[in-house]
Amino acid sequence: MATHEIPEVFNYFWTTRHSPTLSISSGATISFDRIPEASGGQFDSYSPGDPVPELDLNALYPMLGPIWVEGAEPGDVLELELLEYESHGWGWTAILPGMGLLAEDFPDPYLHIWDFEGSSTANFKDAAEVPVRPFLGVLASTPDTDEPQGVIPPGPFGGNIDCRDLVAGVKVFLPVQTPGARLMLSDPHAAQGDGEVCVSAIEAPLGGSMKVSLHKGWSIPTPQFQTPGPLRSGIEDSGYYATMGIGPDLMTASKDAVRYMVDHISGKYGLDPVDAYVLSSVAVDLKITEVVDAPNWAVSAYLPLSIMK
Amino acid sequence: MATHEIPEVFNYFWTTRHSPTLSISSGATISFDRIPEASGGQFDSYSPGDPVPELDLNALYPMLGPIWVEGAEPGDVLELELLEYESHGWGWTAILPGMGLLAEDFPDPYLHIWDFEGSSTANFKDAAEVPVRPFLGVLASTPDTDEPQGVIPPGPFGGNIDCRDLVAGVKVFLPVQTPGARLMLSDPHAAQGDGEVCVSAIEAPLGGSMKVSLHKGWSIPTPQFQTPGPLRSGIEDSGYYATMGIGPDLMTASKDAVRYMVDHISGKYGLDPVDAYVLSSVAVDLKITEVVDAPNWAVSAYLPLSIMK
Repeated sequence: MATHEIPEVFNYFWTTRHSPTLSISSGATISFDRIPEASGGQFDSYSPGDPVPELDLNALYPMLGPIWVEGAEPGDVLELELLEYESHGWGWTAILPGMGLLAEDFPDPYLHIWDFEGSSTANFKDAAEVPVRPFLGVLASTPDTDEPQGVIPPGPFGGNIDCRDLVAGVKVFLPVQTPGARLMLSDPHAAQGDGEVCVSAIEAPLGGSMKVSLHKGWSIPTPQFQTPGPLRSGIEDSGYYATMGIGPDLMTASKDAVRYMVDHISGKYGLDPVDAYVLSSVAVDLKITEVVDAPNWAVSAYLPLSIMK
Repeated sequence: MATHEIPEVFNYFWTTRHSPTLSISSGATISFDRIPEASGGQFDSYSPGDPVPELDLNALYPMLGPIWVEGAEPGDVLELELLEYESHGWGWTAILPGMGLLAEDFPDPYLHIWDFEGSSTANFKDAAEVPVRPFLGVLASTPDTDEPQGVIPPGPFGGNIDCRDLVAGVKVFLPVQTPGARLMLSDPHAAQGDGEVCVSAIEAPLGGSMKVSLHKGWSIPTPQFQTPGPLRSGIEDSGYYATMGIGPDLMTASKDAVRYMVDHISGKYGLDPVDAYVLSSVAVDLKITEVVDAPNWAVSAYLPLSIMK
């Protein structure tokens, strides 16, 4: 089957009004040289020490597509076999006021620029080496909406699910929402922990390719995926340090687990709390330890020790 | 340092009224031949096909201890280095009406008995081989309560945290709550997924030993732990299949992720939904994929494919 380069046309909202930029048959491979990071270049001229630029929220999430998949109908499943991803060696992680899991603890804007050109890890203040494992935070069939809909919230259709495990080698299954599927791709990340707690990952431009297949006679309510092997190969050889939040609300327990991880990282490794929060966002995983011992649940935050210097 | 066999005296509530059954110094190793499973033998005479016995909730969670640690004071940290655990080859998993993450979907009692004598995996209806990875669901310093307090809900002190990663080789750090720590141990599991979604694990008697050390001048708000290496060695070589719940409430998203996993397992492997739910409880992990793309969060349920036959 053919490989199709996706035209470099970007759209900024979910809506069926966008004209398809490419039409493909099931089984085709699509590729792209570079999907811009989520700010669409708004941090390009930033230098460390500058005030953090205020983001134009309407210019967030440049999406490649829509890509029309011939024959796709609502209720079908679109399979994306992620063939290869390559980051471009530069990225950013920001704390944005009012956003993120610990917005009340970290009210001020903060921006860290990453330079990992030619390296398989991204150095963080000489305290950590974060493994580069690129993926797309946004990939979905366009929901059935004429009225433009913002990209930040994901939904059962998928969208901005920010799932760190959707790396090359994985097969992603998306519920088709609209005729032709109108596949959109955006929000490339070079690394992220489960949770993406500070509201951003290593936001980094990405090139890559994927094979697109249509499944008829199979429906799924939300995205699903299959990985070919272990989730954290090479990351967990030194084990993990984990903190816990325990209480009657999963959100509060998540916040507590991350707060205690920030305390742990800043206390043990001498990082400023704000940097410990950023590091948690790009490398610490949130798990639901138990959700049945009523009325209290436990959420744990896992730091892979092999990344710490 | 000495190794102390913990006397086989069991207590059933958190309270400082219990007389210590053993007193040790920091650095001592404690061992036990057999902590009974959480029902305390209430399912011993059950045969498949019998009606599921109603549990006496006051006889749940026989706890070994309290073990007095000399010099321990509130605000200290008690370290448990888990040396070895061994299950006894028999266990149960139950669905109990009104309990569990999907209580509304599975209203009827259900009991599965596991026989895994001499095996490193527990066969489940010839559909799955669940790796045996024993741990204790309950381990804590007794909270500062005179009035007896039930064991089911965990709290910031720890208790019934049901953390599947607290296997042999791990170091657990517990916040000391009361003078002497009054360490209690209970709720042995042979296997469990993160979440313990149907309300029980493979509930199975356990023998083992651990080294107990006291840390002064260090305080933690909730339990923490450190693992010596990868979390899922040998379990994830065939990868995972994952389902997602996406929406504005983490609890609802967790329920949806597990519902879709039950659908997936029953559809693909031909198990009854109730068995797919039980299998999810003992082998599927719940992760918080993203918790910052307001107003919608994503929770994912991960099935390790190497366990499926």
